[in-house]
This record gives sequence, C-alpha cells and structure tokens, in this order.
Amino acid sequence: MKAYKDMSRDELLTLKSALQEEYKVLESKGLSLNMARGKPGASQLALAMPMLDVINSCSDMNTVLGNDTRNYGDLDGIGECRKLMADMMEVAKDNVIVCGNSSLNIMYDTVSRSMTLGVNGSTPWCKLEKVKFLCPVPGYDRHFAITELFGIEMINIPLNDDGPDMDLVEKYVNNDPAVKGIWCVPKYANPTGISYSDEVVERFAHLKPAAEDFRIFWDNAYCIHHLYDDVQDKILNILDECEKAGNPDMVYIFASTSKISFPGSGVSAIATSLKNIEYIKKQMTVQTIGHDKINQLRHVRFFKDINGLLAHMKQHGDILRPKFEAVLDIFEKELKGLEIGEWIKPRGGYFISFNALPGCAKAIVAKCKSLGVVLTGAGATYPYHNDPLDSNIRIAPSFPTPEEMELAAKVFVLCVKLVSIDKMLG
Amino acid sequence: MKAYKDMSRDELLTLKSALQEEYKVLESKGLSLNMARGKPGASQLALAMPMLDVINSCSDMNTVLGNDTRNYGDLDGIGECRKLMADMMEVAKDNVIVCGNSSLNIMYDTVSRSMTLGVNGSTPWCKLEKVKFLCPVPGYDRHFAITELFGIEMINIPLNDDGPDMDLVEKYVNNDPAVKGIWCVPKYANPTGISYSDEVVERFAHLKPAAEDFRIFWDNAYCIHHLYDDVQDKILNILDECEKAGNPDMVYIFASTSKISFPGSGVSAIATSLKNIEYIKKQMTVQTIGHDKINQLRHVRFFKDINGLLAHMKQHGDILRPKFEAVLDIFEKELKGLEIGEWIKPRGGYFISFNALPGCAKAIVAKCKSLGVVLTGAGATYPYHNDPLDSNIRIAPSFPTPEEMELAAKVFVLCVKLVSIDKMLG
Repeated sequence: MKAYKDMSRDELLTLKSALQEEYKVLESKGLSLNMARGKPGASQLALAMPMLDVINSCSDMNTVLGNDTRNYGDLDGIGECRKLMADMMEVAKDNVIVCGNSSLNIMYDTVSRSMTLGVNGSTPWCKLEKVKFLCPVPGYDRHFAITELFGIEMINIPLNDDGPDMDLVEKYVNNDPAVKGIWCVPKYANPTGISYSDEVVERFAHLKPAAEDFRIFWDNAYCIHHLYDDVQDKILNILDECEKAGNPDMVYIFASTSKISFPGSGVSAIATSLKNIEYIKKQMTVQTIGHDKINQLRHVRFFKDINGLLAHMKQHGDILRPKFEAVLDIFEKELKGLEIGEWIKPRGGYFISFNALPGCAKAIVAKCKSLGVVLTGAGATYPYHNDPLDSNIRIAPSFPTPEEMELAAKVFVLCVKLVSIDKMLG
Repeated sequence: MKAYKDMSRDELLTLKSALQEEYKVLESKGLSLNMARGKPGASQLALAMPMLDVINSCSDMNTVLGNDTRNYGDLDGIGECRKLMADMMEVAKDNVIVCGNSSLNIMYDTVSRSMTLGVNGSTPWCKLEKVKFLCPVPGYDRHFAITELFGIEMINIPLNDDGPDMDLVEKYVNNDPAVKGIWCVPKYANPTGISYSDEVVERFAHLKPAAEDFRIFWDNAYCIHHLYDDVQDKILNILDECEKAGNPDMVYIFASTSKISFPGSGVSAIATSLKNIEYIKKQMTVQTIGHDKINQLRHVRFFKDINGLLAHMKQHGDILRPKFEAVLDIFEKELKGLEIGEWIKPRGGYFISFNALPGCAKAIVAKCKSLGVVLTGAGATYPYHNDPLDSNIRIAPSFPTPEEMELAAKVFVLCVKLVSIDKMLG
C-alpha cells in the first residue's frame, strides 16, 4: 500500500471522499461499543464461577495451621494464600503480605503511607518541599492519578520496546534526591504490551538513588497473563536482582487476581524485603485487623497452587487471543504501509497501544465516539492527561466479543485514516 | 458484705490468707482463658454459615439494576447493599458509601485523607503545627492507635453514664482550632457499654467548632448489637441532628457487619452528608476501582433487609447474654458492697468495663495472667496506653463459652480482691 505521505493532494482528496462514504455506512449502524477499559469479558468471568462453590456452609473454614478464617487474625494473610501469591510473584512466602481486593489500593496506601509516615523512618514526603516520580510513558492512568492526587511532580520517561529509557532513569534517580519513585509495569506493560529486558531489570537493580527513600513501584499486574502458549515473556526477578546489587529494600512488587478470578473480588498482594515488610506491618496493624480471609481461602481451595493458576490463565489466553487478533489483523490489513500509525503486537496483558500521527489522537478518539465506539480518552496514558505529541491511543480488546472487536477495529482504522488525511491536508 | 475500707488490718490479713488458698487451688488448674479481645465466639460464627451458600456458581450475579457484581464498577457499593447498610445506620441510602471488610480501615483512611488532602478543601492536617483529637475515656484502643500513629495529640475526656463530658467537649471544640476531631462509640460504648443520651447527641450537633474542618468520628459499631429483646438502647440520629443544627457536614458515621456476619469478611460503610460523600468519592476513585461487590451481594441475598439483620442479631444476643450474665452474676455475688470496684451492666455491645481501686488495674491484669486468664492490657482503653488512675480494665466475654466465662470471672474477682487488699495494706 502506498504511504499517505507519498500521496498527492488529489489522491488524498479522492481517498477521503471514498472513506466518507464508509463513514456514512458505519454511522447508519448506530453502533455502541466500548474499548475503553481493561475489563474481563463475560466468558472470562464464567471461568471462575466454580470458585463460588468451593467454600460453602459445610466447608472446613480453618487454615492449614488451624486458624479460623471466619474470625479476626492473620494480618498478613493466611499462610496458604501467601504461598500461592508468592509463587505467582516468583518470590518467597515470607516476602509477601496478602491484602484486600485491589493491588491499586495497596499502591495507593504505599504512597499515602510514605506521604504521612515516611519510608522506613525517613522524613514523611508531605514534609518535603518537592517530591517527584518518574513515569514511563505511555503508562497506566491510575498510577498517574495516585501521584497527581498527592501533588507529586511527575516526569515523563520514554518507554522503549525493552523498557524505560534507563539512561534517563539513572540520570534522575542517581542525582535528584527529590525523585522518590518510579511507576513500572514490567511485563506486558499497560498499554504497550512490552516486557522489560534483563538488561533493563539489572540496571534498575543497580540504581544508586540520591534519595535513601527512593522506591521502585513494580506493578506486575500481568505476570501470568499470557496470550500464547508458545511465546511467553519472562522477566528477571527484581527482588533478587536488587538484593544481589546491594539494594534489597528498593522495590515494592504488586499483583492481584483481579484479572484471574474476579475484578473487585480477587486477592491482592505486595512483595518486598523483610525489612520493608516489617515497616509496612507496623502501619497495617493500625489500619486494619485483617483482610478478607474467607476469600483468601476460597482462592486457595479453588486454584490449589501455581499450576492451577497457570492452567486457569491458559483458558483466559484462549478467550482473549481472538479478540487481540481481530484488532491486529485489521490493523495489519488496513494500515500497514500507510505510515499513519504504529502498534506493537503484544504477547500478553490487556492492551494494544496505537501511536497515530502527532496531533491526531484526540481527533481519532472523538471521531470513533461519533460512530458509537468509546475508547480510552486520548492523553490518559500520560501524566496530567497530557500526551505532548497527542499521538497515543490505548485499545482495550478484552470486554467486547471477537465479532464486536472486529467491527470496532474497522471503525477505528477508518477514523485513523480520515483524521490522518485531514491532518495532511492541513 | 462489709466494705474492705471498713475492715481492720487484721481482718484484711485474715481475708488475704483465705484468698491465697483459693489462689493456689486455681493456680493448680493451669487455666488458659482469653478475655482480651471482642471476638465473636464459634456459635455466633456458625449463625452466618448459610450465607456462604446463597452465592454459588448458579447464582444470578447481577444487581437489581443489572450491574455485574463480578466485574469492575459501583465504586460506592451496589445499590441494594447501600440500602441495607443505610437502614442499619438509620440514614438515607444516598448518604452511604459501602466499602471493604473493615470500618476501622474506613476510619483510618478518613484520618489519613484529612492528613494528606485536608477536609473538603481545608489545609491538609499534615501541614499544620498541631492537630488534636478529643478521646472520651475509657475508649477503644484501635481508635487511639490511629490518631497516635499520625502524631495527633489526644486529649482525655471523661465518659459519663450518658456520654462524654459535654461541657469539656464544648470548651475544647468551640475554642481551639487545633481540635479537629473526636472519637465516639455512641451506642453500647466500647468498653463501658453506655449509650449517649438525647441531650448529649443534641449538644454534639450544636457544637460551634473553632475549626471548620472539625469532624465527629461516630463509630456506631454496635448499632444493632443488643443483648436483650425488651430493653434496647436507642440513640438520636446524629446526621439528622447535625443537619437541623446547621452543621450538616460535621459528622462521619461508621459501621460494619464484622460482628454480624464474619469478622474480616463482612462489609463496612460510612454515612455522612452528600457534600462529604462527594469529597470522599473524589479520593476513593483514585484509591480503588471498587470494593468486593460479590460479598456485598452475598450479604444482601442472605439478610434480605433490615428485618433480616435484626432477626439475626437477636440470635447473637441469645448467645452473648449468658456470657455477660455469667460475669455480671459473679461480680454481683462476689464484689457487691466491697467497694473495691465498679462496673456497669451493659444492654448491648461487646464489653464489660471494670473500674478497680486506683493504682490496681495493672496488678490485677498481671495476677489474672499468672492464673492463665488473659485480659486486655491495663491502660489499653486510654490514649497512649496511659490510664492516669490505673483503674480501668476491659473485659471481653464474647469468645469463651459461658462456662469458661464463669471460671474466668471467678479468677478475675479473686485477683481484684487480692490486689485491693495489698493496696490497702500498703
């Protein structure tokens, strides 16, 4: 296919009027499709329904150690659930605290605790003139919302195909004591789908932070969320690497079963050094008497162990793969060679990230909306909702059916074409 | 019975040696009983087991409005659960946010949010020189732990039989802008069991705080936790009263089903003015995508409505009453007229509060421990664990069986007697 940039003005105008006919046809269909948020679809939720049977009125409600899950206790989670989450997060059980239903909530609490109480005895961040976080972009809007809420200055760091631009990360972290953290989704990143290379993870572990209370916020949200059986990303264990590099306390790892069992009714966990665990528990013991242990037991009885989790996630992959491929096939067929957009084919996670021509993202999202297809707002993948190039669009293929995804993707590519032509015509 | 203070030194010595014989007998039994924490007992937990059957793999998982409880959404809780909690808290559904498993966690978050973000736009408390909370004493140790963690100065306010000393509350709140809050358990108070009189509630509502961001933390933990069918305490609705008094935003009400369904696996809620609700939701939407809605649905399907809750709590009362009476009967029989201790017979809640002779509480708790009976640490019912009179002891009769409670109470009165005699002998 001929790249748009190589077309004459007349060619573009002819193409535009043909595309406008397509637009009218799609407009007449009165579509209503949503590709805005990474919500599991109905058939994924159905996979976990038998979990609701494993705990019932006849169940033994005690943990392996004999603790009654129905009563107060086990602040850091029941042992068998800590083990399950530890195996999923590839760390030792002692490094894990199992929490409530949301890893986002743990991340929020971790930032909030640092604001009010400091990090392992450091000056509380709220007492400092300025606190900064590094934000690999494009990234996860809800991470950025947390740091924005607390008035933490966010600095964009380009996310490359193998992870964040580590030259820039090192420059900031190793020189500026106001830089206290970095948001990372190291595997099947939200939204680009890339995974951090071994070299990137090692460079993270070998940071020499100017601030003793600098922490890596390692949101391993998609640790076992593969789309394929044969090509699965594997990342280095950051906790081990930090330990080896002499930075044992530098990382917090977060994960949950929100996209494994049920969003909102899963279990979440934080993994970090024993020293950090002790500090966190001192605060947690004031915050709560304990999290929902019956739900922890429900998860353990249903999944049994890491192999149960992996087998379950294979089924998720089988459901998600056709939805991703529906989008990617249409991109490939309709956009390849036109040089009006770029995307990465992800091997896992929940998103496809699309980079339009600079200055086109907002217009594409608006045009899709006019055809009844809702996308994540343009700019959402950047701190302060400000994509300096107005280029990145996050596509969430999980919730609609494959057929709906195909239709939505067709709308999307049409809008990309129309907006790009308008941009070029000036 | 003759009061100890009217006994001669010889009489006390004779009595002491008889009591020491009793001590030896009990010591030889090698008891191991725990009256330390307000944990429901096994038979109470059994009452809620059928709740674990109402949601299973065949259940309709949608709310009345058709929202799928298994997926993200409904930040403030599913409608039918908000209604259930609203009825329990005697407020309108619109004034309620249903949260996670723990009202303590909501209270912690509410203080934490005020520290970092302020109250409806006020200066964040962490930016202030000094923040103070009023603490009716004796009170709930976990309340005091929250304010202590955040470095908030706590001021003791005597708790009378009808509520806190309101002259003192008014003096502090209406004159000192550093006073930002007060911890209250208005019904079946922890630990004294008293309920606030209408006059006290009205005086609360008519406070004229020097600080615009002063808030009443109204922990209605035992709102439907009656011990008797015929004599039930009823308190005025603080939200209504504050509204009428022109202080609509002055109160946060907290409650949960921790001691109704399962501790750790219940649902909790906050009720407050619509303006406060809006402000809280702005922060909550950054903290979490939503709480466990399947568990909310489970509670609604099991209890159905407020009548279901009340019927359930009647069964709880039937289980708890004999345990309370076992203690109170022994107190009555063994301590009445001796003038070495005072207690109130509660009509609900989870505790019996005992005031020993000044300077005796720690020694009594220690002596009970030497006989294998664990009580809440003396001083725990005061901020900073500092009971200035060393007099108050909290007794939690819920967890042991009535027979165990009787035995534990016998140990307790013996220790009270021995320590009191030692005190008097000097």
